[in-house]
Amino acid sequence: MDLSAMQHRSIRKFKATAIDYQTLEAVAQATSSSEFLQSFSLIRVTDTALRAKIAKISGSQVLFQPNGELFIFVVDTARAIGLTEPHSDVHTFTNWNAFLAGAFDATLALQNMLAYAERTHLGGVVLGSILNDPQQMIDLLHLPKYTFPLVGLMVGVPDEQPQQKPRLPQTLVVGENTYPTFDQTAMADYDTAVTRYYAERGAGARTESFTSLVRRHLTANQQHRDEIGQILKAQGFELPQA
Amino acid sequence: MDLSAMQHRSIRKFKATAIDYQTLEAVAQATSSSEFLQSFSLIRVTDTALRAKIAKISGSQVLFQPNGELFIFVVDTARAIGLTEPHSDVHTFTNWNAFLAGAFDATLALQNMLAYAERTHLGGVVLGSILNDPQQMIDLLHLPKYTFPLVGLMVGVPDEQPQQKPRLPQTLVVGENTYPTFDQTAMADYDTAVTRYYAERGAGARTESFTSLVRRHLTANQQHRDEIGQILKAQGFELPQA
Repeated sequence: MDLSAMQHRSIRKFKATAIDYQTLEAVAQATSSSEFLQSFSLIRVTDTALRAKIAKISGSQVLFQPNGELFIFVVDTARAIGLTEPHSDVHTFTNWNAFLAGAFDATLALQNMLAYAERTHLGGVVLGSILNDPQQMIDLLHLPKYTFPLVGLMVGVPDEQPQQKPRLPQTLVVGENTYPTFDQTAMADYDTAVTRYYAERGAGARTESFTSLVRRHLTANQQHRDEIGQILKAQGFELPQA
Repeated sequence: MDLSAMQHRSIRKFKATAIDYQTLEAVAQATSSSEFLQSFSLIRVTDTALRAKIAKISGSQVLFQPNGELFIFVVDTARAIGLTEPHSDVHTFTNWNAFLAGAFDATLALQNMLAYAERTHLGGVVLGSILNDPQQMIDLLHLPKYTFPLVGLMVGVPDEQPQQKPRLPQTLVVGENTYPTFDQTAMADYDTAVTRYYAERGAGARTESFTSLVRRHLTANQQHRDEIGQILKAQGFELPQA
């Protein structure tokens, strides 16, 4: 039985070994997409100066190391819009729904790639942190109108074996036919499990429960993330209206 | 070699055989999540009357058949916000970035579940079509504030073997260090490949290229999708500002 799908842990340290990135790219492309429109593009970053700039945006230590492949998943309706020209009304490719469809496509493709990597004894880490400065990402990758850099992924041969983080109790996350009810006892047990995980892990042991982690997020540095609306609009996407 | 990750095709017809849905749920929960906040919930729909209502919203034929498990993936920052109470400023759990993080978490979990299903000889289809009427989905599933029904997934034992749809040429989708340049010849070849696929497939053969499919999307029925902004706001999420 292949348990890799149940054993994900983020890998942030890789060996120098080269990996078969072309197969990974093919896996990403083979993923489901919304309306079969394949509304994403994929950029593999091999230039070290470019990677250093992305590392600075993300802040993730994994990017400051030389190993591993870096992929940026881009929401992309530009390719489709190019095929409709000349056409005056491209609302269905620029509205909130189109953006969301591109975000699905990009994220599904990323996870298909990561799951395949993990199944073949590679490892990786999702980098939501490229959203710290989307405008700079757009400039660095020369992204045209109707595209948006959504999320990054590092993949490589693992050079560390972190423990798996305990997940929320199923009773808190999964409901049958309706939203799950909140179970205080299950939550308290989970806080205990998370506290144990953080106390016992080798590198970076600390005092931390799930609740304390959530509360610290209240003051998380949003960097340039509150500018995403402006940036999306400048990229040609319509913002959702209340 | 396990090729399932490269051979996805959407399955819309399932056998009556029961599947191990609990393992699938555990796989979804084991997925990467943004900041380890696990900002999604999962609802398994077993009630036939409820399923019939969701079928009407989605319009997807797969839901009008009795077989297969239906999962709804929900963006959820309500659980985290509950852990911060009493707290006056929950901006980091309600802003656009928090919604996007929840959308990542939900979509990554869905694809991890689907990839695992396909690897174990099950099949499935992603149902973006639940967004046709998000408010009704919210009401049907009793979703509280700070949650949003993002996407559905049907999984089961395949009772059909559709052909795989050809994907866009890699040269159009994947760039190295920069956005890929548009290659007209590659696009024309792809249109030919897609036309052949639609002409040759058994059920539902039709005249269709990728370009014609894209152009028809210009007049796609948006149903209630342009209301998503209002609905998100009513659910407690802040909309991106230009």
